Amino acid sequence: MEYHVDGDLVAREDATVSVDDRGFRYGDAAFETCRAYGGEVFAWDEHRDRLDATCETLGMAEVVPDDLTERVDETLAANDLDDAYVRVSVTRGVQSGKLTPKPATDPTVVVVVKPLPRGGLEGDRVWDDPATVQTVTTRRVPSNAVPADAKTHNYLNGIMARLELRRAATEDHQPDEALMRDQSGRVQEGTTSNLFFVRDGVLKTPERGELLPGITREHVLDIARGESFPVETGEYDLDDVREADEAFMTNSTWELRPIESVDGITIGTGPITTLCQRLYDERVDARCY
Amino acid sequence: MEYHVDGDLVAREDATVSVDDRGFRYGDAAFETCRAYGGEVFAWDEHRDRLDATCETLGMAEVVPDDLTERVDETLAANDLDDAYVRVSVTRGVQSGKLTPKPATDPTVVVVVKPLPRGGLEGDRVWDDPATVQTVTTRRVPSNAVPADAKTHNYLNGIMARLELRRAATEDHQPDEALMRDQSGRVQEGTTSNLFFVRDGVLKTPERGELLPGITREHVLDIARGESFPVETGEYDLDDVREADEAFMTNSTWELRPIESVDGITIGTGPITTLCQRLYDERVDARCY
Repeated sequence: MEYHVDGDLVAREDATVSVDDRGFRYGDAAFETCRAYGGEVFAWDEHRDRLDATCETLGMAEVVPDDLTERVDETLAANDLDDAYVRVSVTRGVQSGKLTPKPATDPTVVVVVKPLPRGGLEGDRVWDDPATVQTVTTRRVPSNAVPADAKTHNYLNGIMARLELRRAATEDHQPDEALMRDQSGRVQEGTTSNLFFVRDGVLKTPERGELLPGITREHVLDIARGESFPVETGEYDLDDVREADEAFMTNSTWELRPIESVDGITIGTGPITTLCQRLYDERVDARCY
Repeated sequence: MEYHVDGDLVAREDATVSVDDRGFRYGDAAFETCRAYGGEVFAWDEHRDRLDATCETLGMAEVVPDDLTERVDETLAANDLDDAYVRVSVTRGVQSGKLTPKPATDPTVVVVVKPLPRGGLEGDRVWDDPATVQTVTTRRVPSNAVPADAKTHNYLNGIMARLELRRAATEDHQPDEALMRDQSGRVQEGTTSNLFFVRDGVLKTPERGELLPGITREHVLDIARGESFPVETGEYDLDDVREADEAFMTNSTWELRPIESVDGITIGTGPITTLCQRLYDERVDARCY
């Protein structure tokens, strides 16, 4: 494999950053995870815009290089990849040892890829099974501490949640995604995914509020509105989710992944989930092929 | 300069970590900042214990290498440093691309040093001036999201606070440390320091609760109790600090740094601060020389 680091293609084993880089020292970096289908990155403009927005939130506006698209394309081409996972990171680079960032920045830009065959209309999904979801005690970081709309290398909140799953696992029950709540107990999202559920024919998802604004989430909402079926964004508690007729989680890698159960309570897929999956697959087809 | 990376001394420009390292991807790493005086790291056992504790909190107990002390000593010796800043990091290493950590870990261990002349009883302090402190709107991350007693590479909360200072700076007012509150508005700590203040002869500091358990903070409390002067740990609001007779901040690098002002209100040093500084210097002398 070859990665792209600071403007150059390098062998994976040579793809490194300085231990003085703020991305390493502090997780002081923005990133995006995308999928390429047929050599085309799906929703690239939206990912690029969100990356810019995260950098601006982190006080380093306009550091994303103009040729980032070319760097991604070069990395895919160098690895002969059409269907791939793509991760793009922009750090504040190496500065003096002080925590306060300097305005002038020489960012470190990293593009990582790996093969990820398309499921889509014909193939297998990237996940093996529907999600087994467990509510965790770890709460989401509130936006007044770290802005929720910034997608950054500070991921310990999600890791603490996943560690709870690891500790909770038994032979019969192996949860693989954590459902996280905010400080008030409202259901927010998974550690790496947004949540949708269906009740009485209405597709529901927690309102933006303090969520990471998921790009797949926006596509699903757009698809649902385009089909004119009832959609609601709001504040929900755990019982709302546990009593759902259908539920699924979304992210760029998983696309739409049905939820088998929440806290041991079976939920599973259904007609609205299946329809949304098909329409999302068609959208990928239309944009990338 | 030479750093120590994964068991080897390497030139600073070759001191790197893989972009696949979880320390880079997620800030999934524990660290300590220490000071060496006369070739001896002050309070090393306490730093080492806290590093172990952070790793345990992060679900990677017992990854700190047995020879970490030797690695630090080697790094100081290689750079011919007696008085130095020392930063030790332990990451979860390179694992597969999934967020959920694997139990088996091959940690990445990094030792970074730089010269830091001693102030102490005779010399100059490391800080140029007393701290100009500003309260920020960024609140501390609550412990139910990321445990406050873990010292990790997830430092964006502090960076968001320092960015507020950068935006607030004018020619006449250049705050250099942020005072942070918890979700309830209680005063907690600085971004990289603990807070002490004196009122009516009583030395006060926010109670442990959701603080990082500062090692310098513990030494100051121990010193004060040893001298039998009144000490109080409790819950305080901003007015308590603004009305203080003296105030100072502590961390391993700064030692005890007086606070010139909070939110533009002059506070400054005083007899208890000066006494604590002298007793801390004597403790460094006794332990390191």
